[in-house]
Amino acid sequence: MLVRPMAMKSEFDLIATYFAPLAKAEPGSFGLTDDAAVLPVSEGMDLVSTADCLVSGVHFLPYDPPETIALKLLAVNISDLASMGAAPRFFMLAAAFPRGIEESWIAAFADGLRAGQQKFGGCLVGGDTVSTDGPLTLTLTALGEVPKGQALRRSGANPGDQLYLSGTIGDAFLGLQVLQGKHAELQDAQRAALIERYRTPTPRTKLGAALRGLASACIDISDGLAADLKHLCEMSSTGAEVEVEKIPLSPEARSLVSKGRVEFQHLLSGGDDYELLFSVPKEKQVQLETLAVSIGCPVFNIGVVKETAEIIFKDGGEVVKFDRTGYRHF
Amino acid sequence: MLVRPMAMKSEFDLIATYFAPLAKAEPGSFGLTDDAAVLPVSEGMDLVSTADCLVSGVHFLPYDPPETIALKLLAVNISDLASMGAAPRFFMLAAAFPRGIEESWIAAFADGLRAGQQKFGGCLVGGDTVSTDGPLTLTLTALGEVPKGQALRRSGANPGDQLYLSGTIGDAFLGLQVLQGKHAELQDAQRAALIERYRTPTPRTKLGAALRGLASACIDISDGLAADLKHLCEMSSTGAEVEVEKIPLSPEARSLVSKGRVEFQHLLSGGDDYELLFSVPKEKQVQLETLAVSIGCPVFNIGVVKETAEIIFKDGGEVVKFDRTGYRHF
Repeated sequence: MLVRPMAMKSEFDLIATYFAPLAKAEPGSFGLTDDAAVLPVSEGMDLVSTADCLVSGVHFLPYDPPETIALKLLAVNISDLASMGAAPRFFMLAAAFPRGIEESWIAAFADGLRAGQQKFGGCLVGGDTVSTDGPLTLTLTALGEVPKGQALRRSGANPGDQLYLSGTIGDAFLGLQVLQGKHAELQDAQRAALIERYRTPTPRTKLGAALRGLASACIDISDGLAADLKHLCEMSSTGAEVEVEKIPLSPEARSLVSKGRVEFQHLLSGGDDYELLFSVPKEKQVQLETLAVSIGCPVFNIGVVKETAEIIFKDGGEVVKFDRTGYRHF
Repeated sequence: MLVRPMAMKSEFDLIATYFAPLAKAEPGSFGLTDDAAVLPVSEGMDLVSTADCLVSGVHFLPYDPPETIALKLLAVNISDLASMGAAPRFFMLAAAFPRGIEESWIAAFADGLRAGQQKFGGCLVGGDTVSTDGPLTLTLTALGEVPKGQALRRSGANPGDQLYLSGTIGDAFLGLQVLQGKHAELQDAQRAALIERYRTPTPRTKLGAALRGLASACIDISDGLAADLKHLCEMSSTGAEVEVEKIPLSPEARSLVSKGRVEFQHLLSGGDDYELLFSVPKEKQVQLETLAVSIGCPVFNIGVVKETAEIIFKDGGEVVKFDRTGYRHF
């Protein structure tokens, strides 16, 4: 194939070359050639819809690899679907590309989307590409399906329900710090593991689906455990008590905390974890833990839902206070 | 209520104050308080999905009123639904607000969205608000419904079908020119009419729905009549012959063309018209024209679909050539 050294493809050619192939699996996308897509929603299913916007320099680093930016864009949206118990089906992508972006960047970004669709499921069905004088800005709307009436909500937790977390937290926050030049004392493989959590989170789709009928409330952790626990409790009109020593940390995070290189509370507020935080009635705990083993997803019982509307962290029986509650956009 | 003179509300407060009230009509939006929305798709309907991204300085002027930017954002998406014969139901809004944006701007923008929902139908059900160092960037995903299997497509035109247009073209292009200081010789009311076409296009939802089962192909004109006719013909594997004198112009556009203030071909390529261009089999012409009168929507028979894959414009029987075919993003 000839290389086009100067001219960027037109919007139409870009879509045809890089994005239309991603839409092949869904006939209703019409190969991205029509005004809109026609989506066949399955009988007996509710459609679940979420959208996230990622801005270069805010939600990812300008020099993050395009493949991982694509994976993260898919993952953060699919994580929202997972927290409702829904599986991904359709994606709409709106990309505002900075003028002068390299075509090879767009090609690599599309490769990342393809890899993400293969890994997580779902299919691109439409969207928009425009040019901007500002930073790269990517919006994905993800549509998923859940059996009618079975979507998980943030609002169903009851006092006495047990609080669970699906994996370790704080790693994405530490991964960002590694990319900013911190934690040079860690081994290469450890730094790489943290960077991977930051760049390519894995949405808990399988667990989310398994929690239907089991969890009383569920949320995915994007703003940090402390902030998202607050959201879940506010929507459920409850409080919670969390035992700090039960919060799972990766070996890397544990090592950095124990050496005083990072404050524990920053792991609670760093965000970008994309683990599921959920509540389960006591009588369903055994069923949950058995199911979690069978699908190979770790779950950790970190505390309990309380009636009084406050969130208490306890360490060795003592109440501890943290002042930061999460990332605020404004 | 106290005025907060310095601090911008948090992302959560902004959503609660300005956007959640727009989501009230749809219980499945959960008041924008959950990870995703659960959308009840009606039985017997296909879901139609489209997304458009508008960037300040590219798709609207930085000093356009926030209310009209909101209306345009809704209108350009609903126009895509209309061209498929679908009625709007759900909107997802992703807004990247420049740091330091006035809260009053956001309030006025939300007022515009409210006015648009009342005018066009549909309901906000979710989205994302983030901050950006770049220009204001707004992405809307619009979901509509159409009876199963009845969506209009670009691809169904057949040789001999008559080509129709739903209203005058070029006015939005002239409206932008007026905002750029041109056409000062027009009267105030004329300039205002052109600006209105640019800032607040009206999607042809009623006509789109009426065309189901009547039109063989349909597209909405966003890139200009010449370019979008080309898209329709390419997707239908046909050509077309258009009689230039039958293309409807507003009194303002006609006056500017006749005085040589604007070239006719720029009206064909200016874009942003958001009229419907569609083809109708000859035997359904009477039915179409009767229906158009009954719903109060003007339609104009501007030409005919041809077998040969070329688009010919004729003026008084003579073939005329235009060199620009539409707005290219890159």
